[in-house]
Amino acid sequence: MTVGALREQYDGARCVGWQRQATGMSVQSVLEDAAAHLAPAPLTVAAGRTDAGVHAAGQVVQLTLDRDLAPERLREALNFHLKPHPVVVLRAAPALAGWSARFSAIRRTYRYVILNRRARPALEAGRVWHVPAPLDAEAMADGARCLLGRHDFTSFRASACQANSPLRTLDRLDVAREGERIVIAAAARSFLHHQVRNMVGSLRLVGSGQWPPARMAAVLAARDRGAAGPTAPAEGLCLMDVGYQQDPFAAGDVAID
Amino acid sequence: MTVGALREQYDGARCVGWQRQATGMSVQSVLEDAAAHLAPAPLTVAAGRTDAGVHAAGQVVQLTLDRDLAPERLREALNFHLKPHPVVVLRAAPALAGWSARFSAIRRTYRYVILNRRARPALEAGRVWHVPAPLDAEAMADGARCLLGRHDFTSFRASACQANSPLRTLDRLDVAREGERIVIAAAARSFLHHQVRNMVGSLRLVGSGQWPPARMAAVLAARDRGAAGPTAPAEGLCLMDVGYQQDPFAAGDVAID
Repeated sequence: MTVGALREQYDGARCVGWQRQATGMSVQSVLEDAAAHLAPAPLTVAAGRTDAGVHAAGQVVQLTLDRDLAPERLREALNFHLKPHPVVVLRAAPALAGWSARFSAIRRTYRYVILNRRARPALEAGRVWHVPAPLDAEAMADGARCLLGRHDFTSFRASACQANSPLRTLDRLDVAREGERIVIAAAARSFLHHQVRNMVGSLRLVGSGQWPPARMAAVLAARDRGAAGPTAPAEGLCLMDVGYQQDPFAAGDVAID
Repeated sequence: MTVGALREQYDGARCVGWQRQATGMSVQSVLEDAAAHLAPAPLTVAAGRTDAGVHAAGQVVQLTLDRDLAPERLREALNFHLKPHPVVVLRAAPALAGWSARFSAIRRTYRYVILNRRARPALEAGRVWHVPAPLDAEAMADGARCLLGRHDFTSFRASACQANSPLRTLDRLDVAREGERIVIAAAARSFLHHQVRNMVGSLRLVGSGQWPPARMAAVLAARDRGAAGPTAPAEGLCLMDVGYQQDPFAAGDVAID
């Protein structure tokens, strides 16, 4: 019996999201189907259950498999069976006793990219939110600072969110212009459903001058989803990294060998 | 009558290359079909006639159109008619008298990206050359330096190359590792057909240790295509920028307005 930690990358554009669904190809079903070639009835749990269209550069997944396999062999075998799907395993490591990909995570880092120029994306199509009107990244950064810290994030929570509490601690929400791109980095122990996309949808209204930056504090205080802006599209969002007290990949790193 | 300079971006994965061909969608045919909505029989000349699969982040095109249009209107109208193809016009400017996108260019800059890790690309599929075995980027950089300057580049020239002379001056060939990526930046007034991809194909043999870096000098001196390595795949290559004595976009820049 192997319980493994996997670091995964996937292109969300061609998936219905992480979670297995009846309606299409999910990352979980692709991964479990690949693992089922190695042993029957594999189980997977992801650190972040990303929505349809959301990408991952550093998702972490816990795989329970009824077979003993060395991490390198597990990674190679999974990558072989994952072809030709846009899902790959970057690293594999033995899971520590009691470790959970989801509940042991102490930090999730997302990146949201807005392409802010007149012309549609060509090379970055499906990876960015295209906003043609000019945005003021500094105003957005000012607005973003209003949300840092521990708050009731009801205003930025999807109605379908299943979390018990709307309280979250936002550790980081940086906004920076890089040429034609506006890059937003968000980090927290955990996020509510659609929280990053809802924060970005509101920050866009600050960037376009429709809202002053301080409006973000008022929206937060309202604890009302109706007070915030619309949800930003999934395609600009990417799960970059998941952090743990003890990094499961620190010892068994087999990225390039 | 308008003679315009256009800065273009396109995804080469879905095109048969820049040049109009009977066998599929070329960037030139997509652009001329879009321009034909504005006036009959438009003519286009590109600074770099990129091959099938090669991308462009900063291609420059000369458009001759039998109609007077302000640059912003030309750009907007072209982008409207270019939908849904993966080709966009970033900037438009009036062409200076006597200017040629192709013959006035004094510098072309390409970037080649190798994804150097065990796992296939997921997010970067179609944008990189996947080389699973570890490469020594410093050895590649040493090898690359052997090619700088004015030389007969016959060893790195495609047999189909139509240039009159194999003499070229290579101004820049930098190799640097950026995490899992090896990024190669090449600049010259002009390149021979497949020159960048052939240089990269040989540098890969240096990176994997099959060739010492000094072998690059011997390959160059051989003036024999058979002495060099194989041609690196098109998908890792991107035309980044084209330089002119007088930048046609310096005044009429309408990137974000």
